[in-house]
Amino acid sequence: MDKILRINMGAEGGPKVTVAPFGDYAGLGGRGLTSAVVSKEVPPDCHPLSDANKLVIAPGLLSGTAGSMTGRISMGCKSPLTGGIKESNAGGQPSQVLARLGYGAIMLEGKPEGDDLYKIFINKDGIRITTDNSLRMLGNYDTVEKMKKEFGDKIACISIGPAGEMKLNAASVACTDAELRPTRHAGRGGVGAVMGSKGVKVIVLDDTGVSMRQPKDPDKFREANKVFTEGLRKHGVTGEALPAYGTNVLTNILNEAGGYPTYNFKEGRFIGASKISGETEAALETERGGVPTHACHRGCVIRCSGIYNDKDGHYLTKQPEYETVWAHGGHCGIDDMDKIAMMDFLDDDIGLDTIEMGVAIGVAMEAGLLKFGDADGAINLIKEVGKGTPLGRIIGSGAAITGRVFGVERVPVVKGQAMPAYDPRAIQGIGVTYATTPMGADHTAGYAIATNILRVGGFVDPLKPEGQIDLSRNLQIATAAIDSTGMCLFIAFAIMDQPETFQAMLDLINTFYGLSFTGDDVVDLGKKVLKMERDFNMRAGFTKEQDRLPPFFKTQPVPPHNVTFQVKDEDLDKVFNW
Amino acid sequence: MDKILRINMGAEGGPKVTVAPFGDYAGLGGRGLTSAVVSKEVPPDCHPLSDANKLVIAPGLLSGTAGSMTGRISMGCKSPLTGGIKESNAGGQPSQVLARLGYGAIMLEGKPEGDDLYKIFINKDGIRITTDNSLRMLGNYDTVEKMKKEFGDKIACISIGPAGEMKLNAASVACTDAELRPTRHAGRGGVGAVMGSKGVKVIVLDDTGVSMRQPKDPDKFREANKVFTEGLRKHGVTGEALPAYGTNVLTNILNEAGGYPTYNFKEGRFIGASKISGETEAALETERGGVPTHACHRGCVIRCSGIYNDKDGHYLTKQPEYETVWAHGGHCGIDDMDKIAMMDFLDDDIGLDTIEMGVAIGVAMEAGLLKFGDADGAINLIKEVGKGTPLGRIIGSGAAITGRVFGVERVPVVKGQAMPAYDPRAIQGIGVTYATTPMGADHTAGYAIATNILRVGGFVDPLKPEGQIDLSRNLQIATAAIDSTGMCLFIAFAIMDQPETFQAMLDLINTFYGLSFTGDDVVDLGKKVLKMERDFNMRAGFTKEQDRLPPFFKTQPVPPHNVTFQVKDEDLDKVFNW
Repeated sequence: MDKILRINMGAEGGPKVTVAPFGDYAGLGGRGLTSAVVSKEVPPDCHPLSDANKLVIAPGLLSGTAGSMTGRISMGCKSPLTGGIKESNAGGQPSQVLARLGYGAIMLEGKPEGDDLYKIFINKDGIRITTDNSLRMLGNYDTVEKMKKEFGDKIACISIGPAGEMKLNAASVACTDAELRPTRHAGRGGVGAVMGSKGVKVIVLDDTGVSMRQPKDPDKFREANKVFTEGLRKHGVTGEALPAYGTNVLTNILNEAGGYPTYNFKEGRFIGASKISGETEAALETERGGVPTHACHRGCVIRCSGIYNDKDGHYLTKQPEYETVWAHGGHCGIDDMDKIAMMDFLDDDIGLDTIEMGVAIGVAMEAGLLKFGDADGAINLIKEVGKGTPLGRIIGSGAAITGRVFGVERVPVVKGQAMPAYDPRAIQGIGVTYATTPMGADHTAGYAIATNILRVGGFVDPLKPEGQIDLSRNLQIATAAIDSTGMCLFIAFAIMDQPETFQAMLDLINTFYGLSFTGDDVVDLGKKVLKMERDFNMRAGFTKEQDRLPPFFKTQPVPPHNVTFQVKDEDLDKVFNW
Repeated sequence: MDKILRINMGAEGGPKVTVAPFGDYAGLGGRGLTSAVVSKEVPPDCHPLSDANKLVIAPGLLSGTAGSMTGRISMGCKSPLTGGIKESNAGGQPSQVLARLGYGAIMLEGKPEGDDLYKIFINKDGIRITTDNSLRMLGNYDTVEKMKKEFGDKIACISIGPAGEMKLNAASVACTDAELRPTRHAGRGGVGAVMGSKGVKVIVLDDTGVSMRQPKDPDKFREANKVFTEGLRKHGVTGEALPAYGTNVLTNILNEAGGYPTYNFKEGRFIGASKISGETEAALETERGGVPTHACHRGCVIRCSGIYNDKDGHYLTKQPEYETVWAHGGHCGIDDMDKIAMMDFLDDDIGLDTIEMGVAIGVAMEAGLLKFGDADGAINLIKEVGKGTPLGRIIGSGAAITGRVFGVERVPVVKGQAMPAYDPRAIQGIGVTYATTPMGADHTAGYAIATNILRVGGFVDPLKPEGQIDLSRNLQIATAAIDSTGMCLFIAFAIMDQPETFQAMLDLINTFYGLSFTGDDVVDLGKKVLKMERDFNMRAGFTKEQDRLPPFFKTQPVPPHNVTFQVKDEDLDKVFNW
């Protein structure tokens, strides 16, 4: 993994490929690399769909190795949704395969003149780019099927669905999982629209004949990986809860805590929660011959993923994640698990961020377009998106645009991006992250739920403003670093509670690269990444006024705790004072 | 005109009226007053459709007097379109009538709980507010007809059409003209959506039994008015061109100058220009028994308005203004005057900003939704807006949203507001105004066309960056002051060229109020207004990065002069250094 692949999609005479060493970007991976490139090379004032934007797709520092949990892939660009910098990452196979093929990043640059669709095939022999208009407006599932027929089943795919082709602001980029299904998405911020603007429908990766990346010190690396894996297996969250019930274990927990946003953030508890909880979901999966415990990429030891079959026992979709179940579920007042699973499938196939979609549908419900609880109406709305009808394009442009078009006042977004599955009034730490992360409302950017609710890494009372700034700051710094390693963020539960697991993670990096990275270096890396991202946003015209929740969170208390968001503006402005 | 009327539409038990003296706002009128109130009383972070926003409707300092040209009314609020402060002003009768009734401003505050529609009747005896749901989704024309039946024809109306009720971001507020037709609009920035969010459909004003406002020194006031009027009559623009051909006299002039934005700002000349010029328009009006020279309010001596009849000699709409003809004409590649007039009527009736609508339709054409030149398709799109279909709501949300929803890169907006009828590359002075005015792209905020093209107030070469900053700065300052007087901005042509006309304008203010206002005081007032507006925007999160044209104006040259916008960013940042 010593080279960077640039593809100028706007070159005269067709796409032009350049392969070069890392150069200035040496030592960076994942989010650290994508944010460095975007911050340095993309003009902050450019239109996100213009030739000046770049889509940077980067495995992490440890991707493609034998290290556990190293399968995340980062996608960075100027976001069409937020207008700021974006890093969105996904699981699945592409990260490992791309890293083994030796590429530290693929950068899609420029913009073709016409509207031809391109597919890019990369294997050990090089890069082949061809137009393939037979792929036009295909769903991700059909696209991958066609790629299997053409290139065999030893591949991994990175693709967009119709949403990305239509350049919708909620468009995701799909990555195939271990079963070669397009179920793992870089969902947030419209990265799929940027891929669509480059005319690239699918990137097919084949690492046949290429071996795993080799550490500098194989023995010590193996030892570190063993300790690391054991650490993950013994922690309650990563060793029990996530494997058994997946991320959707959180439904009952958040509902109990009164922080489960219901009916477009009007209430903090949903009466139908138990019908769509992780426990219910896992039981259904088992009963129907699905899989409740499953790895989204090879090398995962947490295995929070799963396979969801329909009533007849046929594959319907991957196990829908907590945020997906929430967005299409409680947020919209829907408690029918099968219909939520159908929406998950449609989102994956059309290539849409499930959070943005669910929240946009909830906002449409608030506008009176359909009733809260109308599952069939919600499914129909997603189908409209796939068809590109005007109504579909509105919803597919995300919650903020949906609110603007329908004249809705209560729109839960920050920097134009829809808020995820945790009420920032009942869990004030996550509110600080929503408000201040350079990414727009994003739970993964500094997952305060860990400490506010799950009591991982200590405890900070979720209902009070005290301590939330420090909590969010530290989590945002740690996350920016972890997102650069290619490791799944879920390792954070174990490394926050278990010093030896944290040390093992450092040892994995150090024994692989021959470094002597310390905890302080992790913090420094995280700060460096955040600083680049904040700097980009500032140059794009963001100020502290964009580091705020919508005003209604300060004025409308959420039951059952009847709290408003209490963290002061001047304290929010201290998150990045370090 | 010594009191301010506040109506809290959200008060318990129904709207609550308070009438009080000016207090802190003493000495202010028009835009000076609306911007002072918005800047002081509206939280910059509020949602523009929330109860925290206010719609301030204010006649100017000289409205309601016998002074010529004093019939402009200002409407101010936080804009749903730009997210910044907004002052949009209109001609017609309401300004004079409201001022004579003694009100320096009507402020609509709060927000009713339900969705009842209200009408507000104001006469010498007081204020009467009643619900009237029979007005729901009526066009402005039908609304005014109903008001005439109910209140007689000695009234003036301020109303919204279906667009305002639907809270669309391009919704205008209509004011009736001298014939009691809803043809004069505070168009820009979505002020109609804010009125709609307050639940107010129409404000009916009746000044029966109320006399004209009396100056402190009636003789000297009369004398000043005479000199002022003579000055307007003898200037080529205000005495000849505007009366003869209306504002649409500009089509041929701008087209000749290569600054007439054509096909969504792709070219600077339109092959069909002569078919939709002011000369053609005036000839058609005369031929069909319409009126080419007409005053939009009593007391106007320029009379740039007119009445446009259809082929059968029946009233179709008022004489469409230059910007309207351009937006629906050259911008969309349409050269059919009757179809443009039909769009003008539809915009007025539905209650829409003609500039925002035309530009949005052009952006939809760029997206491939319909072809450039498709007049019937464009008419149909406006009808969709009136019906509130999803497609109509997209277009009615303005050009920026239309661009977002349809994935278009070339969207001519600043601060989210559509650019008017002058290409900022071929006329660089207006580009400086578009970029830097607190209002979002707005030609009226500092009409550099005067000096760049019409050679009024000197000459600055439109194709070069030199001198444009000073030009725009001085015009923005002067405009902010004029907009506070209630005087029509078109007086500027005469006062820029003729010192005695400028002095006569000062004398009108001084003899009316017993003041000794000088030219320096005018400049100070303008600066004060701009400072309040910029301050509001800054607190709402705007930075210098929002004081920019979209990047394509810097990279794509416009024929026939093949120029790009050359004014440097660092120079744009000097506009408000004084």
